[in-house]
Amino acid sequence: MTFPVVGMVGGGQLARMTHEAGIPLGIKFKLLSDTAQDSAALVVSEVVVGDYRDLDTLRAFARGCDVITFDHEHVPTEHLRALEADGIPVRPGPDALVHAQDKGVMRAKLTEIGAPCPRHRIVKDPADAAAFAHEAGGFPVILKTVRGGYDGKGVWVVRSEADAADPFRAGVPVLAEEKVDFVRELAANIVRSPHGQAVAYPVVESVQVDGVCDTVIAPAPGLDERLAGEAQQLALRIAAELGVVGHLAVELFEVRGADGKPAILVNELAMRPHNSGHWTQDGAITSQFANHVRAVLDLPLGDPRPRATWTVMSNVLGGDYPDMYQAYLHCMARDPQLKIHMYGKDVKPGRKVGHVNTYGDDLADVRERARHAADYLRGTITE
Amino acid sequence: MTFPVVGMVGGGQLARMTHEAGIPLGIKFKLLSDTAQDSAALVVSEVVVGDYRDLDTLRAFARGCDVITFDHEHVPTEHLRALEADGIPVRPGPDALVHAQDKGVMRAKLTEIGAPCPRHRIVKDPADAAAFAHEAGGFPVILKTVRGGYDGKGVWVVRSEADAADPFRAGVPVLAEEKVDFVRELAANIVRSPHGQAVAYPVVESVQVDGVCDTVIAPAPGLDERLAGEAQQLALRIAAELGVVGHLAVELFEVRGADGKPAILVNELAMRPHNSGHWTQDGAITSQFANHVRAVLDLPLGDPRPRATWTVMSNVLGGDYPDMYQAYLHCMARDPQLKIHMYGKDVKPGRKVGHVNTYGDDLADVRERARHAADYLRGTITE
Repeated sequence: MTFPVVGMVGGGQLARMTHEAGIPLGIKFKLLSDTAQDSAALVVSEVVVGDYRDLDTLRAFARGCDVITFDHEHVPTEHLRALEADGIPVRPGPDALVHAQDKGVMRAKLTEIGAPCPRHRIVKDPADAAAFAHEAGGFPVILKTVRGGYDGKGVWVVRSEADAADPFRAGVPVLAEEKVDFVRELAANIVRSPHGQAVAYPVVESVQVDGVCDTVIAPAPGLDERLAGEAQQLALRIAAELGVVGHLAVELFEVRGADGKPAILVNELAMRPHNSGHWTQDGAITSQFANHVRAVLDLPLGDPRPRATWTVMSNVLGGDYPDMYQAYLHCMARDPQLKIHMYGKDVKPGRKVGHVNTYGDDLADVRERARHAADYLRGTITE
Repeated sequence: MTFPVVGMVGGGQLARMTHEAGIPLGIKFKLLSDTAQDSAALVVSEVVVGDYRDLDTLRAFARGCDVITFDHEHVPTEHLRALEADGIPVRPGPDALVHAQDKGVMRAKLTEIGAPCPRHRIVKDPADAAAFAHEAGGFPVILKTVRGGYDGKGVWVVRSEADAADPFRAGVPVLAEEKVDFVRELAANIVRSPHGQAVAYPVVESVQVDGVCDTVIAPAPGLDERLAGEAQQLALRIAAELGVVGHLAVELFEVRGADGKPAILVNELAMRPHNSGHWTQDGAITSQFANHVRAVLDLPLGDPRPRATWTVMSNVLGGDYPDMYQAYLHCMARDPQLKIHMYGKDVKPGRKVGHVNTYGDDLADVRERARHAADYLRGTITE
């Protein structure tokens, strides 16, 4: 049989769960991982341990792969172009991926295509940040290094010019954005294949705690139907305009528009399976991971519709209680429908080490079950 | 974290799919495989290539495993006892497993506990088989070697004494059974854990073609509710009486009883995930593979109830058309809800190389979709 080899760069949980979703398709999966103990490296049969920042390593890894895709967005753009020049399909490709790598490029492109964004511009120093704050209606404003941030890292809420020194220390360009007074955060997730087929998942609500995704509710409760459609259309348009292949998460702010009606602004883009799509593993007909694999192989995409009225995902963060396996006994006995997804990572306080999915017809019940399991696994509750 | 290591003996598709189901639980999975190209060996990170019939190999493999379980029932009973004596939990244990290894032992035990069986006895030669046929109402009768058979191998339909020589050539005891005039074949699948918790899946209909499972329909259409309950109770009782741990498939004949009412007879037992339970991957809240893992680890079991009105599984057999990957394009485009499960095996005519699952509310539609995909992948239809 002529089953293709998918090369996955990065050994985190997204690679782990993409591997899991690829097994039923019979495709071969090859992993480039920082260490042999990375989340995905623990479960994949063919692992190359190496540094994705080294072009020779990447090139050697890519030989024998039919396509390269990613667990993260940190591979240097010029390396991706080199792989393409070698004749290896890279999905998403460097021209698309740069928009998820560089927040400055992302904002410029989104503005160009008319996607609604918070007010923003590149600022050159704390005084310039203060000038931006003046333009944007005053402090606080958000400063972000254009590259290298995730889960709240590389992001500062700045309340004064004196407060604005830190973001500039890394020597990376700094993007200033107005601090949006949002109603809640949403995510519009879509998957797009090279020949342009695309599927849109229901728009979800993403509840953040301390800048880290805590809970995702699918679909977003009470979301205006017109706005949900707008968000899906926007995500599909962004994917097409940017030439995205694979899973695209468009993180959104839901705001109250000038006319008093609900509206959306784009917060961030992620071009890979995304935390806001983990609910699809148990809550959608085709998971984001399965569809990401199908997209990068240019196979027809699977049905993205939900299988349950409500699905809730809650992240399991590392806490003070290291033995999460012992906690399975209580969690599984309490809720035989609970879906646990652990990543094989060592527990460190605040680290994402897994997530749980619950689903059903009663949202309050579904939320409570996810909340309980995530808290019990973390060890913040004991019954 | 103190996550356990599950040692799986045998590298077939059942091991492959059990590994897939174990990934979300964060457990470690170690495989003893005949070759590095076996179905599961292609996707598991820690593979020992070796012969399960060799005790030293088994013992070395078992060191560092917290529990041993199986992809097949062929490990010699005395080896399993040796592992237990070494202090390694073996699940299912040898005292249970012998009933799935030896059809003579199985029939004796089932008769002892009052489980309904076809008429049967051990026969010593063709003349004795003819005598049994006379007792059982005449030829044809079924002869089976008590060990080593599967998928119709080791089973003969014998129409005369002259016809009965073959089964005796292997030098293995031969069991004679009446040829049951059944209405259809059913399977009652349950999972049981060491501390005695058990869950029962809906009773399914299993459609065999040439002695090989072709299609499974969950639940069995039009099955008498009383009989379905009886079948589940019977499977639970067999598991308890035999001390089964893990997944138990009780293959059943549905017959018309002497009183004209539908009744059941036990055909075969399998103590491992089973082809008649593959539908649970996409059709049940908890799959047979996930529950098998939970059972062998003595974790609380997951909800076995169906997620759809109907789920249909059809096996994909190897045909004349070797490039099943190319066939994905048509199958996936035609049915975005189709679930393909391929095993990574080379295509050989008649070999089980994968299966498909479909689900929905309209049984005729669900069956047609599974049938079409299985036939298209095999290459017996081209549109």
